[in-house]
Amino acid sequence: MEVTQQAFNRDGNIHLGQHVLAEFFECDSNILNNIDKVEKYMVDAALECGATIVQKCFHMFNPHGVSGVVIISESHLAIHTWPELGYAAVDLFTCGDKCDPKVAYEFLKKKFNSGNALFTELKRGMLDEESHKVAQKTFEIV
Amino acid sequence: MEVTQQAFNRDGNIHLGQHVLAEFFECDSNILNNIDKVEKYMVDAALECGATIVQKCFHMFNPHGVSGVVIISESHLAIHTWPELGYAAVDLFTCGDKCDPKVAYEFLKKKFNSGNALFTELKRGMLDEESHKVAQKTFEIV
Repeated sequence: MEVTQQAFNRDGNIHLGQHVLAEFFECDSNILNNIDKVEKYMVDAALECGATIVQKCFHMFNPHGVSGVVIISESHLAIHTWPELGYAAVDLFTCGDKCDPKVAYEFLKKKFNSGNALFTELKRGMLDEESHKVAQKTFEIV
Repeated sequence: MEVTQQAFNRDGNIHLGQHVLAEFFECDSNILNNIDKVEKYMVDAALECGATIVQKCFHMFNPHGVSGVVIISESHLAIHTWPELGYAAVDLFTCGDKCDPKVAYEFLKKKFNSGNALFTELKRGMLDEESHKVAQKTFEIV
């Protein structure tokens, strides 16, 4: 897992990955209920933020809603949509310093025509600054 | 998406899903670097917590590390492993009140022979208690 050995310290701390938990509200329900569009936008979001796609799988639920994941060399992007609520829960998890998951967040916000969206960014896999071993603590909120 | 319309209020609040972010430390590196075992344990973890599996995809990195996702009717389970650090970052996201992601967490902790593990549980897709529309706010930490 070549990229994961590069802990990065964009903001002074050392950690393996950054995880954006995003909530998209007031989205276009027709988009959220269209598996082809959701898949295309998630793939494009990965590419937009500079990720390398290795696998993907998407599923359409009956009567509505799409779930899907794009596995990238740098971790994964995941989505679950509730078209009936105009809502999507999205996870954008990247490792290394090549990708910025917030670029994917901004891209998806536009593509879903989201009238309102929120995200929280977490640091995952905190590394001890001296030993560079993984520190046994939970994520930190940026 | 049949299950997602059932907001649940196990603890008095109404939300669509519960998302456990888990960090597994001091794991058996041979397990974390074995795609067949990682996939089997993730699938079994989904079944253990009562989920219905709809798709899965796993990827082995060169020289080491596994990433994978199990999409379930109730959302998804995702994993990224760093065998060289004995560390795995795992997401266990379930919707409805049928599954408890903490059951999957305990199961994986044993299967990975993790000497130390931590998790944080989030509520995602908060619903307004009166209108039952999705509330435009971020997750809450349980």
